[in-house]
Amino acid sequence: MKDILPFETVALNDEDSALVIVDQTKLPNEAEILRLKELPDIRNAIRTLQVRGAPAIGVAAAFGLYLAVKHSEARTFEAFAAELKAAKDSLNTARPTAVNLSWALNRMEKAAHRYQDKPVARIIKLLHEECMAIYEEDILMCRRIGEHGLRLLKDGDGILTHCNAGQLATSKYGTALSPVHLGRERGMNFRVYADETRPLLQGARLTAFELMAGGMDVTVICDNMASQVMKNGWVQAVLVGCDRVAKNGDVCNKIGTSALAILAKHYGIPFYVLGPSSTIDMSIETGEDIPIEQRAAEEVTTLWYQKPMAPEGVQVYNPAFDVTPNALVTAIITERGILRPPYSEALAADFSVITPKNTP
Amino acid sequence: MKDILPFETVALNDEDSALVIVDQTKLPNEAEILRLKELPDIRNAIRTLQVRGAPAIGVAAAFGLYLAVKHSEARTFEAFAAELKAAKDSLNTARPTAVNLSWALNRMEKAAHRYQDKPVARIIKLLHEECMAIYEEDILMCRRIGEHGLRLLKDGDGILTHCNAGQLATSKYGTALSPVHLGRERGMNFRVYADETRPLLQGARLTAFELMAGGMDVTVICDNMASQVMKNGWVQAVLVGCDRVAKNGDVCNKIGTSALAILAKHYGIPFYVLGPSSTIDMSIETGEDIPIEQRAAEEVTTLWYQKPMAPEGVQVYNPAFDVTPNALVTAIITERGILRPPYSEALAADFSVITPKNTP
Repeated sequence: MKDILPFETVALNDEDSALVIVDQTKLPNEAEILRLKELPDIRNAIRTLQVRGAPAIGVAAAFGLYLAVKHSEARTFEAFAAELKAAKDSLNTARPTAVNLSWALNRMEKAAHRYQDKPVARIIKLLHEECMAIYEEDILMCRRIGEHGLRLLKDGDGILTHCNAGQLATSKYGTALSPVHLGRERGMNFRVYADETRPLLQGARLTAFELMAGGMDVTVICDNMASQVMKNGWVQAVLVGCDRVAKNGDVCNKIGTSALAILAKHYGIPFYVLGPSSTIDMSIETGEDIPIEQRAAEEVTTLWYQKPMAPEGVQVYNPAFDVTPNALVTAIITERGILRPPYSEALAADFSVITPKNTP
Repeated sequence: MKDILPFETVALNDEDSALVIVDQTKLPNEAEILRLKELPDIRNAIRTLQVRGAPAIGVAAAFGLYLAVKHSEARTFEAFAAELKAAKDSLNTARPTAVNLSWALNRMEKAAHRYQDKPVARIIKLLHEECMAIYEEDILMCRRIGEHGLRLLKDGDGILTHCNAGQLATSKYGTALSPVHLGRERGMNFRVYADETRPLLQGARLTAFELMAGGMDVTVICDNMASQVMKNGWVQAVLVGCDRVAKNGDVCNKIGTSALAILAKHYGIPFYVLGPSSTIDMSIETGEDIPIEQRAAEEVTTLWYQKPMAPEGVQVYNPAFDVTPNALVTAIITERGILRPPYSEALAADFSVITPKNTP
């Protein structure tokens, strides 16, 4: 697949000891490339959504953890492990909801412990390999998700998506948008309706940018227009990503996802959730147990021509995510394949065959 | 009821021959009072939403039509009627969806024709009385809607509303928000969740402003958060206004309303539509026959810190309204009472008793 975008979403420049990202808070107006070397800057980039999307956050965190200990002067493993843990804890609290963040950090820490009898310099080399593996596996996973997802679509389909679960949310290809990118490469044409995704407008800013850059047919709608677009018969499938999936198939994703699932059910449109299997958290029984990040009121109130959009001091409820009950999910697509309800059984079977990467 | 706001939404200053409105595009940051004397300015105020909300549009149009012919020098009724019709046609095309606009204009024109044997100066006096009657009936209607609506609520209820169907959408009290204002006056307390209502943010800007001015408990949410708020158990009733209701009870209202109705059904929450009976268009069989205003793409794309929020040239679908099928409507509340399904029968019975004002 040719490169969709003129830059990488997340990359490691090892010579320069820098995490390289495009500042997504400035897209689509400006594609500013950030080279981040210090742990607080990397943590801040994750916290402020300069890099966002569960898979990309995981990769950025792994790169960040590696960079945090790359120049360690620790002489014992214990000292090194303490440094590593401090950096891990800092990164781990940058965002509360995405499981990939802690998954990637845990994987890095476990790799270090696996090699604890080796010299620190060697462990650092191995951590470099581990974070590069996380990055490369992410690309491969996304491609596989696209392959599986494409089996559920046909040429000319109208697709509705929410937030950005594309190239800009992963190392490459995307999750929800991977079938769209792969299909396009194979000469298929989809019409994509991109929910603008309030409050931070990832759909209007990022999904529209990414799909237009790839020469695709994309139409931006306000989130509250999805019902009308579905009613018009323009949508053959809803494709969304996921930040965390519980053991029973409940899906935590960007706020507004559960509404789309309810609308899709009402209109008889399949609702597909696409994500790497690392997003499935078998330690969480149901969606009720997933912590929902609450974000600042200003995200909602201050976009009206630089003036307040709402009266000063108004109360705001601003959850970043919601949980879609498994009953509303037509299929969950991971790099391993297509899972159908009942998810408790499907996920248990899937995870019994392949050792999960995200369980201790 | 004490005045909720420090200004009237729509008023006629007859001495000054001016329509007086607050420029709602500048709320909540600025409460600029506009005194409009010329027909093009009045038409423009309706078109650009400086005055908005179906009932307020009707009143503003009636005042505007009166002002357009107030200083007529026509010597015959035919000449006067031609002037009136030209002004009416101009105002009538300012917004395509709200039935109140053409209802009020038709009522004014019919009044003129009823008195066609009188001198033009006398007809103008009678048109003044007619537009004042429309204004005063609107206030009374809204109050009655509030009385009926209040019977469906209980103290402490959480209410979710969309757009602004309050004081700022009518001459006074509001439609959907009238029970909230009346209840407040009687010492009841409601928690109101106000959908911000993209793209023009009437909920964040106007509903929040109006309810805070009235000392009420209001929380702004993004439209895509309504599902989560309902799931949290915070909503006991959805109250929305309406721009037009078809003979079968299909409800045309601000884009996003149908999604709320589907969500309310999913969560088992009553979904109430409140509006004056003039909003019910017995000449329209179903919602499918209601024309839906499509508005400019820039409304969606250009609110991001004065910079574009979406890539330049992106396709946008921006319908201003949608249609909620009657099956999703728990009750329709007008000034005459509470109507329950099946609406074809309920509306036919209701309209057979009282001569409708909006049929020829």
